Amino acid sequence: MLDLAAIQAAHTRIRPHILRTPVLTSESLDTRCGGKLFFKCENFQQTGAFKSRGAVNAVFSLTDAEAARGVATHSSGNHAAALARAARLRGIAAYIVMPSNSSKAKIRNVEAYGGRITLCDPTTQAREETCDRIIAETGAAMIHPFTNERVMAGQGTAVLELLAEVPDLDLILCPVGGGGLLAGTATAAKAVRPAIKVIAVEPAGAGDAARSFAAGHIIPLEHAATIADGLRATMGEPNFAVMQRLVSGVATVSEEAIIAGMRQLWETLKIVVEPSGAVPYAALLENNLSVTGQRVGLILTGGNVDLDALPWMMKQP
Amino acid sequence: MLDLAAIQAAHTRIRPHILRTPVLTSESLDTRCGGKLFFKCENFQQTGAFKSRGAVNAVFSLTDAEAARGVATHSSGNHAAALARAARLRGIAAYIVMPSNSSKAKIRNVEAYGGRITLCDPTTQAREETCDRIIAETGAAMIHPFTNERVMAGQGTAVLELLAEVPDLDLILCPVGGGGLLAGTATAAKAVRPAIKVIAVEPAGAGDAARSFAAGHIIPLEHAATIADGLRATMGEPNFAVMQRLVSGVATVSEEAIIAGMRQLWETLKIVVEPSGAVPYAALLENNLSVTGQRVGLILTGGNVDLDALPWMMKQP
Repeated sequence: MLDLAAIQAAHTRIRPHILRTPVLTSESLDTRCGGKLFFKCENFQQTGAFKSRGAVNAVFSLTDAEAARGVATHSSGNHAAALARAARLRGIAAYIVMPSNSSKAKIRNVEAYGGRITLCDPTTQAREETCDRIIAETGAAMIHPFTNERVMAGQGTAVLELLAEVPDLDLILCPVGGGGLLAGTATAAKAVRPAIKVIAVEPAGAGDAARSFAAGHIIPLEHAATIADGLRATMGEPNFAVMQRLVSGVATVSEEAIIAGMRQLWETLKIVVEPSGAVPYAALLENNLSVTGQRVGLILTGGNVDLDALPWMMKQP
Repeated sequence: MLDLAAIQAAHTRIRPHILRTPVLTSESLDTRCGGKLFFKCENFQQTGAFKSRGAVNAVFSLTDAEAARGVATHSSGNHAAALARAARLRGIAAYIVMPSNSSKAKIRNVEAYGGRITLCDPTTQAREETCDRIIAETGAAMIHPFTNERVMAGQGTAVLELLAEVPDLDLILCPVGGGGLLAGTATAAKAVRPAIKVIAVEPAGAGDAARSFAAGHIIPLEHAATIADGLRATMGEPNFAVMQRLVSGVATVSEEAIIAGMRQLWETLKIVVEPSGAVPYAALLENNLSVTGQRVGLILTGGNVDLDALPWMMKQP
């Protein structure tokens, strides 16, 4: 069950294998948006993304007998690298199915951690079928990137650390793709600080969470058109259920705001953030979300970008 | 006089106005170079560079009568922004002479802090003449970017903080342009820890420090050909005197190593470092400097880059 106790247990379990990432602030970004912003820098996390939290928790929760057959997943990239690293830490195999349009940086990252990669077509169906076949052949444990409960619990540990460092936040802005981070974050944040508001943010070009939240049931994403490659998945059922229960709203952001926001973070904070990680800050640029006078936590989810293909130098899709 | 007491006094004076920047480490970079590296992140400093330390120390050391007439300087950029900010903090004018080929990011930075900019030809002579004229007109106090003793003392505070956090360093790698940071760093480091070695690093394309060190007197740079725009100046006399007395050697690095090193720092540490800041790390890539088994402090001097013109996307000079 995904609750505060599970997230606290995850934190104890993963602590030896992950970094306690810093929280950055910037007077000039505060001035620009009218609130006080606290950036939890998961771009500095092991493997360059918060995904290491959930992956380590899932892998180290397996029994020895389960672990011996290895783990498998499909992922657009960051969960893949995180699972490969977690498996290596435990000394077991990681079978990774990646869409063929994954960025080079993310593929290299998975290879570097010893993951056994199988590329497939960039559709949900192809990912799942390929992964099912590998699991049938190997007996590996499926570690789904966002519906796995241990993964969600691990992802929730980032906001636990943020709230330990900055207890009096009014609002958390959390990106949503499949909803693993969102489920863990909302569960942890609302349990530790019931008065806090959690708002999910997603690219308008992969706007299933906003549409599903409004409709009261999941409306699958038919076509994702966004540079934020970590947020192209349709939300999972357990993730959506948590969102319905604990999240105050869903903001969507344009591609222009994601790119402008990413660039402002690089220029001002002097850090490398990937497009998905810039999505919460982008919501403050769109003027559809006011945070005047509020203390706002933002999770900078990752920093794995292809430095040869920065978005402000590319034609937009 | 530039000594440990002056640097400690500078630290007390500037502390309210600067950041105590973090020290980052990376297992993968350690593995790559065989030593244990500690990166002092002055790219996160106010105005994006260590130059804020020296500028604040110089401006806040002026008497009220001196300060009332403002301050002036010539600078390739980071000292300019730092001086403009320091002057604004004290409520006085800053007259800034910048070479016309300064990066847009650096010019914007100076403007943002209220500096009054005069552009001039990118030669030492033009910079000095323009600055002299402005001083004659305004009575402003000249705050030279690297020969000013208060500036040197301020720059030395970064390594004081680094050694407070990591006392048992064997070696400091410090970039050298005009030599302000080098003079402050060597003075502070050798006073706090006499056994430490300080090695200066500069681009081969602006290799006056290495040639001067070998010759025993300053050999002025006739033509600087390097992407490291913070390191294009000829060393100052007082700076060179400190180098002769306290520095163990000077390493030079190629443009290729600077660019490759800068990129590795971005990809691995997930931080934005400007070319000049990558120069010390680049020395470890060139294989002309072995740090096997050593604990090495590196000062990442700044993070002000033009994100539209990253060096790995440009034709080389």
